[in-house]
Amino acid sequence: MLPLAFLLAAGSDAARLPLLMFVVFVSAKLMAELFEKLGQPGIVGGILAGILVGPQVLNWVEPNEFLTALSELGVMFLLFKVGLEVRSSELFRVGGTALLAATAGVVVPFFLGWGILLAWGEPQMEAIFVGAAMVATSVGITAQVLASKQLLAATASKIILAAAVIDDVLGLLILAAVSSMARGSVNITELAVSAALAVGFTMIVATLGTRAMGKVVPKIEEKLSVAEGQFALAIGLLFGLSVLAIYAGVAAIIGAFLAGMALAETVGHRVHDLTTGVAELLVPFFLVGIGLHFDLGVFTDPPVLLLSGVILAAAVVSKLIGCGLGAIGMGWADAMRVGVGMIPRGEVGMVVAQIGLGFGVIKPSIYSVVVFMSLATTLVAPPLLKWAYRGVEPGAEAAEEPMRIG
Amino acid sequence: MLPLAFLLAAGSDAARLPLLMFVVFVSAKLMAELFEKLGQPGIVGGILAGILVGPQVLNWVEPNEFLTALSELGVMFLLFKVGLEVRSSELFRVGGTALLAATAGVVVPFFLGWGILLAWGEPQMEAIFVGAAMVATSVGITAQVLASKQLLAATASKIILAAAVIDDVLGLLILAAVSSMARGSVNITELAVSAALAVGFTMIVATLGTRAMGKVVPKIEEKLSVAEGQFALAIGLLFGLSVLAIYAGVAAIIGAFLAGMALAETVGHRVHDLTTGVAELLVPFFLVGIGLHFDLGVFTDPPVLLLSGVILAAAVVSKLIGCGLGAIGMGWADAMRVGVGMIPRGEVGMVVAQIGLGFGVIKPSIYSVVVFMSLATTLVAPPLLKWAYRGVEPGAEAAEEPMRIG
Repeated sequence: MLPLAFLLAAGSDAARLPLLMFVVFVSAKLMAELFEKLGQPGIVGGILAGILVGPQVLNWVEPNEFLTALSELGVMFLLFKVGLEVRSSELFRVGGTALLAATAGVVVPFFLGWGILLAWGEPQMEAIFVGAAMVATSVGITAQVLASKQLLAATASKIILAAAVIDDVLGLLILAAVSSMARGSVNITELAVSAALAVGFTMIVATLGTRAMGKVVPKIEEKLSVAEGQFALAIGLLFGLSVLAIYAGVAAIIGAFLAGMALAETVGHRVHDLTTGVAELLVPFFLVGIGLHFDLGVFTDPPVLLLSGVILAAAVVSKLIGCGLGAIGMGWADAMRVGVGMIPRGEVGMVVAQIGLGFGVIKPSIYSVVVFMSLATTLVAPPLLKWAYRGVEPGAEAAEEPMRIG
Repeated sequence: MLPLAFLLAAGSDAARLPLLMFVVFVSAKLMAELFEKLGQPGIVGGILAGILVGPQVLNWVEPNEFLTALSELGVMFLLFKVGLEVRSSELFRVGGTALLAATAGVVVPFFLGWGILLAWGEPQMEAIFVGAAMVATSVGITAQVLASKQLLAATASKIILAAAVIDDVLGLLILAAVSSMARGSVNITELAVSAALAVGFTMIVATLGTRAMGKVVPKIEEKLSVAEGQFALAIGLLFGLSVLAIYAGVAAIIGAFLAGMALAETVGHRVHDLTTGVAELLVPFFLVGIGLHFDLGVFTDPPVLLLSGVILAAAVVSKLIGCGLGAIGMGWADAMRVGVGMIPRGEVGMVVAQIGLGFGVIKPSIYSVVVFMSLATTLVAPPLLKWAYRGVEPGAEAAEEPMRIG
């Protein structure tokens, strides 16, 4: 500790960047390694590394704009990489189940969160915002667990990915609705336009993207003179669709995922490898970024701690029940996997809470409760996922699937 | 243009990051492609893209801390990647020539810059700072040209890389000396300590790094449970040595280069591929970052423009003569390649000028002259390099080398 503390204190301007990169990257990898050695998911170690080096414990690293940007790039490249391993036709095959799981996974948490806050004696608007924050699904963590364990080919994983895309659109609409309620008026036309734009963008890219890229990419590529032209095209599409996704009202990572999926059948193994390089560098910043925002403050106030525990339990159970019931047609085991996979709220839940804070409709203590719930659901999901996917072979369809040969 | 301008104006907070990434990356790649099609080095296109989207022309992108950080990471990964392709034993084999080339390449530009400024009637201190700024070599641009054309194996390329490392140490000492002169006192002991630290760090890592990594990396790696463990170790070493390099007084990219070289004989092809992915993403930010700082202001003031032209010519000729003469023992063709390869001053020259500006010993017009020289040398080097390396086969030793068989 001493030499590092000395270096950090003595840190010249020039050393700041590589030192920050070193501390974040190495702490995330060391903790991930420790957790893997203990038989736990490395991803939890990465998030805990963020709590450890962050303001709450060692105070080596403070959240800042640069780290936030690296964190966003990290989860964009992660979802892009996941998209590269998924065919849109496979998502559409499980589309009905995913729609059911996503919808039930939105309705159940919303009403449970709302009900609990009302029962706790909190005002109506605050209860609605907490309900809205419990709706969100942050698919990044689940995607990283599934990708690192090579479980993306399992049916349940496809349902999770499709449901996460749908969930993002539903979450956008709920956020738009509660935001206009907080402003005092709900404009149905505006909501309908938002819905049409988000659904339209997602559906068009998901249905036509693969075919369009299959025609366009090889044609452009054969004319390119720059080195690694296919990768350059892929990155251009990744950032381009991320921008368009935001303008269509959905998250940048949905655009990144759709970009990957559109290219899944076109690009070669080289693009996978180069993308993996970027993801390996940046995903630790995504994990540590989550941990940096952890606020241990809720532990100092017993009533807030109690509410945090209740909301956390409700957040876990409501997604399990909602998403699980939605996917129950696939069998109990897959339903459980889908339910667990949709538990993490991550940064999405925190954004909803921040908006509520901005409108002045939720108070700081409730904001802390939501932040705690968002991060705690993110921490509990990886071990639950590991348990739910026990017995599923890496790279194979889920255990319940009929064997293809024999 | 219209839709982009519209999007930029309408840009929500969430869209800013992917939009910035998109504009910088795609403009760099488009311009690189255009230049390659015209038979010119793509790297020049990347820098011109920065001028184009920067404040001087379209004003779509302003230099900011985030872009500066991505640019620094880009050149660090670039030098790390170059290091991975170089064996330290090969650098030591050309060490004598490199030392001669670096030293002459420091002495000639310094005195030429100093003399011109004095002849121009500028004060002594200002002349010394311009001389010091003309000493710097920014090896990033040359490294990118050589790496992309697979010319790193040529003898001249080895001399350039070794000379660039030595040049960085010499440049540090000159900067330390002129900075203390600007403060009014030169502390010889302090300079000697700086020299010992910089030379010591560089020599120890260059001589012992390869053997140490050859022993340590396989041992640690076989015990690792995290995925892509070798790449994680490589990144840790890259950032760790970059930090130590700065504390030893040399540039972060020298640390990154030494890290790559230390691992060159240990890590597998997978680490090369993953590193290439990161470099492919980030190097365009390095190139655009250079262009963003281009100041067209010197073109509006005829006397300043004249001085800029003279200084630019002196900067090119003095490195050609200095480094070329230093390497003349390798034959005329290699001497020319080394001279040309050391021409770019890049960000290093600008940093010296900034320090002079900070001490108040150089005036803004002379600062513009130095910035112009730094960037113009960076722009002229790639086509000159292409010309100097004509006839050298990619992946082969330089044409003058005796054939190994036959």
